[in-house]
Amino acid sequence: MKPKLLHATVAVVLGTACALPASAQQKPDVLVKQRQAAMVLQGKYFGPVRAMGQGKLPYDASVVTRNVGYLDALSHMPWDGFTPATKDVKSAAMAAVYAEPAKFKEAQERFTSEVAKLVEVSRKGDEAAVKQQILAVDKACGGCHENFREKQ
Amino acid sequence: MKPKLLHATVAVVLGTACALPASAQQKPDVLVKQRQAAMVLQGKYFGPVRAMGQGKLPYDASVVTRNVGYLDALSHMPWDGFTPATKDVKSAAMAAVYAEPAKFKEAQERFTSEVAKLVEVSRKGDEAAVKQQILAVDKACGGCHENFREKQ
Repeated sequence: MKPKLLHATVAVVLGTACALPASAQQKPDVLVKQRQAAMVLQGKYFGPVRAMGQGKLPYDASVVTRNVGYLDALSHMPWDGFTPATKDVKSAAMAAVYAEPAKFKEAQERFTSEVAKLVEVSRKGDEAAVKQQILAVDKACGGCHENFREKQ
Repeated sequence: MKPKLLHATVAVVLGTACALPASAQQKPDVLVKQRQAAMVLQGKYFGPVRAMGQGKLPYDASVVTRNVGYLDALSHMPWDGFTPATKDVKSAAMAAVYAEPAKFKEAQERFTSEVAKLVEVSRKGDEAAVKQQILAVDKACGGCHENFREKQ
């Protein structure tokens, strides 16, 4: 099988809309490392933003804008790392990730969509509205963690 | 000291242009974990793009566009994790990171600027030009790794 044909086959088998997912040829332990890396960085950039949303840190629009921009990219990065091949790699992922993929996908999409809304709202600059949407993102993180991640 | 004043002081002390850096209040081992996470994800998204630039993978414009967009954000993420406080945390960072901060900063800026150029070029859609700029980014990665990262 020529590389181009293999490439096309992988894309079709995995049901991707456009092309080779970044995860297509990686070993399971690498996939877990990469998805954990995305979560670590989501924590890095959402942490201070959440604290501002909760009133625990002074609101700083420039930090919110920068961090939310990064989160917009990061919010898409972990999900292709949860392939069935990673099921037996040690991590905090609960069995439900693999047993209830539709529910897991729904939780991912809620998160990415709440982050996208936060990007929109933060562009308009209404602090109260931004804070409200920050809390909606936080709820989407928590909703997914509660059902799909072991207690830390 | 009130939180707002503390916040302003931290920003001034660290010489940031705009606001509280994400790293301001983190423990050194967390900073190292976060900067390594950014490097892991740069590898995830640049790996296939580099292989396309080198002709080792079939060129796929949609993958390049997506990955380069992510890289644009990721290219900014590791650097505030290299604070002097992280000097003694085990990692692949060489002593030069802390001994030659100006040279290290120059290498970071070369990388972020080559990635920004790749974003520009990839928008224009000229495959040969994109491939050339992919190799320029690869060179910027390598230049920094050679002087500042222990051999892997």
